[in-house]
Amino acid sequence: MKTQYYTATSIDGYLADEGNSLDWLFQFGEVEGMGDLYTQFIKGVGAVAMGSTTYEWIIEHENLSEEPEKWPYDVPAWVFSSRELPTIDGADIRFVQGEVEPVHAEMVETAGGENVWLVGGGELVGQFYDRGLVDEIILSIAPVTLGSGAPLLPRNIAKSPLELVGVQRYGDVFAVLTYET
Amino acid sequence: MKTQYYTATSIDGYLADEGNSLDWLFQFGEVEGMGDLYTQFIKGVGAVAMGSTTYEWIIEHENLSEEPEKWPYDVPAWVFSSRELPTIDGADIRFVQGEVEPVHAEMVETAGGENVWLVGGGELVGQFYDRGLVDEIILSIAPVTLGSGAPLLPRNIAKSPLELVGVQRYGDVFAVLTYET
Repeated sequence: MKTQYYTATSIDGYLADEGNSLDWLFQFGEVEGMGDLYTQFIKGVGAVAMGSTTYEWIIEHENLSEEPEKWPYDVPAWVFSSRELPTIDGADIRFVQGEVEPVHAEMVETAGGENVWLVGGGELVGQFYDRGLVDEIILSIAPVTLGSGAPLLPRNIAKSPLELVGVQRYGDVFAVLTYET
Repeated sequence: MKTQYYTATSIDGYLADEGNSLDWLFQFGEVEGMGDLYTQFIKGVGAVAMGSTTYEWIIEHENLSEEPEKWPYDVPAWVFSSRELPTIDGADIRFVQGEVEPVHAEMVETAGGENVWLVGGGELVGQFYDRGLVDEIILSIAPVTLGSGAPLLPRNIAKSPLELVGVQRYGDVFAVLTYET
């Protein structure tokens, strides 16, 4: 069982541009092999966590208020928010706030030996990192720079560097780098 | 002949931390294969360009005011600065300011068919990019995040994305990604 941060990012470490858009990512469409990578990854996942901005982005992007069946996760999802957020019919969503440790413990128990996926954003993942709760970081680096936007992981992780454990290339678009903490 | 931006960077796209230090990079010492990569790269270089911060960093880091023979480049170097900077005995250094285009033309001519290396920093490279003068970007990504610091390339390059042309791994430390514009 691992706690994983799996995300796409720009070369310069942004998850979304200033307008909170992912157009820079979606322009590439389906890149050969990336679908299989996700399929393989999601097979091992037993619980997901995300922040409120990520949650609201999915609701809007997938038009979930009208098409709730498009919620993309089959496993329970924990959404960290201090605000009241809309629910989604038929989706197992657990709203939480405060310290990440007890929530992580609950996620691990629920996942029953499967992995915990931290979907984002960067600040929430940073809080998990601060508590030593992140095992693996898998980055699909798109061939763009954004110059500004939502940071991948707003932390200084230099004194105990990560360990590069995997490098893959998908066409002329994505480099997928895997790190262990 | 290509104009290349070859640099080390953190995962989140910083060239140096807030204190302008590269300790996060030097902690890895000599990583197997990286020396050969540099040797191969520098063989093809006929001219280098850098900004004043990079130049002053090299002077201080290499103690060039007392040991000028440690200047690391055999080829002519163009240093962009609006300030007066110290010279280095025995080194071919050409101080310039203003528009990058005429300087680039001069570099290309001097390089005589060999490549032009943009050493950094990010803003200077951005100015070359704005004028369509960057052909290749080679990034040695160290397994750290810095969270803040000197940006790799403070531009939004998303609408005409880069093209990933090479991916290499050096031990559990560096992923070297090569992009063409």
